[in-house]
Amino acid sequence: MAGLKPLKGMRDFLPPQQIRREVLFEKIKSVFRRHGFDPIETPAIESWDVLSGKYGAEEKLIYRFRDRGGRDVGLRYDLTVPLARFFAANQGNLPRPFKRYQIQPVWRAEKPQKGRYREFYQCDIDTLGTRNPLSDAQIIAAIRDALVELGISDFTIRVNHRQFLKAIAGRLGLEGDMEVEMARILDKLDKVGLEGIRKLYLDKGFDEGVVNTILGLIRESPSMDRVLDFVGDAGREAFDNLSDIFRYLDMLGVKEAVFDVSLARGLDYYTGMVFEIVLNNLKIGSVAGGGRYDGLVEVFTRFPVPAVGGSIGIDRLITAMEEMGLLEEIPPTYTRVLIAYRSASGEIMEYVFRVRKELDFLNVDIYSGDADLRGQLSYASSRGIRWVVIVGEDEVERGTVGVKDMESREQVEIPLDELADYFRTRNS
Amino acid sequence: MAGLKPLKGMRDFLPPQQIRREVLFEKIKSVFRRHGFDPIETPAIESWDVLSGKYGAEEKLIYRFRDRGGRDVGLRYDLTVPLARFFAANQGNLPRPFKRYQIQPVWRAEKPQKGRYREFYQCDIDTLGTRNPLSDAQIIAAIRDALVELGISDFTIRVNHRQFLKAIAGRLGLEGDMEVEMARILDKLDKVGLEGIRKLYLDKGFDEGVVNTILGLIRESPSMDRVLDFVGDAGREAFDNLSDIFRYLDMLGVKEAVFDVSLARGLDYYTGMVFEIVLNNLKIGSVAGGGRYDGLVEVFTRFPVPAVGGSIGIDRLITAMEEMGLLEEIPPTYTRVLIAYRSASGEIMEYVFRVRKELDFLNVDIYSGDADLRGQLSYASSRGIRWVVIVGEDEVERGTVGVKDMESREQVEIPLDELADYFRTRNS
Repeated sequence: MAGLKPLKGMRDFLPPQQIRREVLFEKIKSVFRRHGFDPIETPAIESWDVLSGKYGAEEKLIYRFRDRGGRDVGLRYDLTVPLARFFAANQGNLPRPFKRYQIQPVWRAEKPQKGRYREFYQCDIDTLGTRNPLSDAQIIAAIRDALVELGISDFTIRVNHRQFLKAIAGRLGLEGDMEVEMARILDKLDKVGLEGIRKLYLDKGFDEGVVNTILGLIRESPSMDRVLDFVGDAGREAFDNLSDIFRYLDMLGVKEAVFDVSLARGLDYYTGMVFEIVLNNLKIGSVAGGGRYDGLVEVFTRFPVPAVGGSIGIDRLITAMEEMGLLEEIPPTYTRVLIAYRSASGEIMEYVFRVRKELDFLNVDIYSGDADLRGQLSYASSRGIRWVVIVGEDEVERGTVGVKDMESREQVEIPLDELADYFRTRNS
Repeated sequence: MAGLKPLKGMRDFLPPQQIRREVLFEKIKSVFRRHGFDPIETPAIESWDVLSGKYGAEEKLIYRFRDRGGRDVGLRYDLTVPLARFFAANQGNLPRPFKRYQIQPVWRAEKPQKGRYREFYQCDIDTLGTRNPLSDAQIIAAIRDALVELGISDFTIRVNHRQFLKAIAGRLGLEGDMEVEMARILDKLDKVGLEGIRKLYLDKGFDEGVVNTILGLIRESPSMDRVLDFVGDAGREAFDNLSDIFRYLDMLGVKEAVFDVSLARGLDYYTGMVFEIVLNNLKIGSVAGGGRYDGLVEVFTRFPVPAVGGSIGIDRLITAMEEMGLLEEIPPTYTRVLIAYRSASGEIMEYVFRVRKELDFLNVDIYSGDADLRGQLSYASSRGIRWVVIVGEDEVERGTVGVKDMESREQVEIPLDELADYFRTRNS
């Protein structure tokens, strides 16, 4: 027998944790729906041909195996590549633009470390089939509104454009691999700092003058106008596109978005706007991010399908919300009332079920174990159930119940026919 | 490039299908919560040691592979064995009895056929840690109430006890393999009929007199008393236990439960009460089932942990509900209103966002594609969005909007400041 714990990097979620996750997912979904997105799901297992060649060096993290029929398959690494495959497979039945949300687990054979798991949920929204900058703005606004709905307020949305980075690389004479490398190293800025990326650039053989120019530009925190000045006409399209997006963001009530030329985003497939949301007072990295990727879906459809999307990192977000004390309101159980009884005699049990019927608008557990009343009360405590309704021979005779508030430890006796009202006024 | 379709036996869920599933899952969850169950989740991948030796011949259907670290692992085949592992791993932090629900996909490398998939969701509830017959009754009642919540009314809950079957086998002199075989073949009764199982029994070498006795007993649809008469004292415990369960079911308002000595249930691990729910007017097999399994958890804990549980077969249920027309009320999109515009001029778009603000209590999509108004209306149609709010220069000037009901095709002009009320009265 192997260990009883989940495999390395995988997790069991006990009721208190799972309830927090369910509450968060529900809130996020409600906001995505409010912005006009509808849900889809795709299979956990995809053909290897679908997954391969999409993630660069990360490909080695995919759980790949042969199924019982000998097919070369893998567990999905993210929800974006499956979405592209899904769109190609179902395009005849999908509206354009196609706006979907998807909340499902993904698997990555990563080195487990704090905050990194081998199975975790992604909460994605994407719009396929349009270059309209409103679609970019809607993605950012929906994710921003989801954070606000979760009670998070102090954050910054960093926004950049991949074509700006390309234009900067061009202005500096960097081409091909060097252009890609410029962005990849820039992406490490938050982790290693300015001097850290200087070293990385020099190690990769970048010219010292070029490195100084890059670092100088970043240090300035330049405006879009300043970047346009620097790169000239090569940045015009990015400038106009980002201007439109910022205008729509403003109309959508998104006040937290700022232009940040140093934002690169790791993934290779981004082609336009990229964004990232960071919490201002917590050093935990970004809690959400995304961007435009106009080339990826085409790999499956064989004709161009522009696309833009974003993702909330739910695990990191939960960590942040715990640190901010935002999850304390969520109770550790859905059960509001435990009905306990002094003995399981036929008469008492009949009465217990009458009590339950009175409370059928609430989540009620009728104690179903074998403990005495004392044990039943400690059962309620261990689950975090707030109220215990107690039935014994005396209560049956008097037509009442005992009601114990497990928080204040106070107990009162209430006539059975007033019980429903008692909880209606306390169920807020 | 492989085919774009999902792998054999796996499915993409488009928004209309996924919304139906989400609505069903939410209703089922709400009922499980009302009965005092809390949610957990476990990882998709388990160590092979956890999965092996639990499913009998079915084991060959498990997706088994080596992970990147060379570990022998598999995708979960059901939610029951992972629950047993979970309980053993987390027992110090779990209340007794432990009542949980779990709704997650499972994987089986089955021959794909109508209604059989290689990835599908299970909706399970289980209570661990007690033999109290109330816990058996709560499982059946919660699943029964979930079906009622979904609008299903005409069904029968068949209930039997594994110890009755054991006692019958004993009375007939069947031991060891023959005892197990008696139940296994009986389980095929619904599929092959009485004459079919006669043949199966004879093929397996059962004595003809014994077979006639079994078939005779089944044909009688005997009461519990009759079965007790037949088997004598060996059936006393089962009789008392089932009597308690039926008494609790009655108190819990479950009127659909009937004793049925012919119910066997396939899985080997059941030890006590078994049940199955069948729809009376649809020949699609059972939509839910379960039973008591007092030996399984012990494999992980190494001390006895009695357990009882049940599962709703969501795919079969959806098929049934479609046939009964019970899903037509669920709209194909969450989006209630599309805001469409005659042109994307700055002035019109400013107004569009004012319209959206008026309707921020609804799921509203601001059209984000590139089509003209006609195309926007057909976009609304293709998604099944009921209402389109139309903005053009005239509307901006008059401070109004056009509101088109896509069902009746009628269009009216409404002042912007009356728009929210207009939809509040129509949002039921």
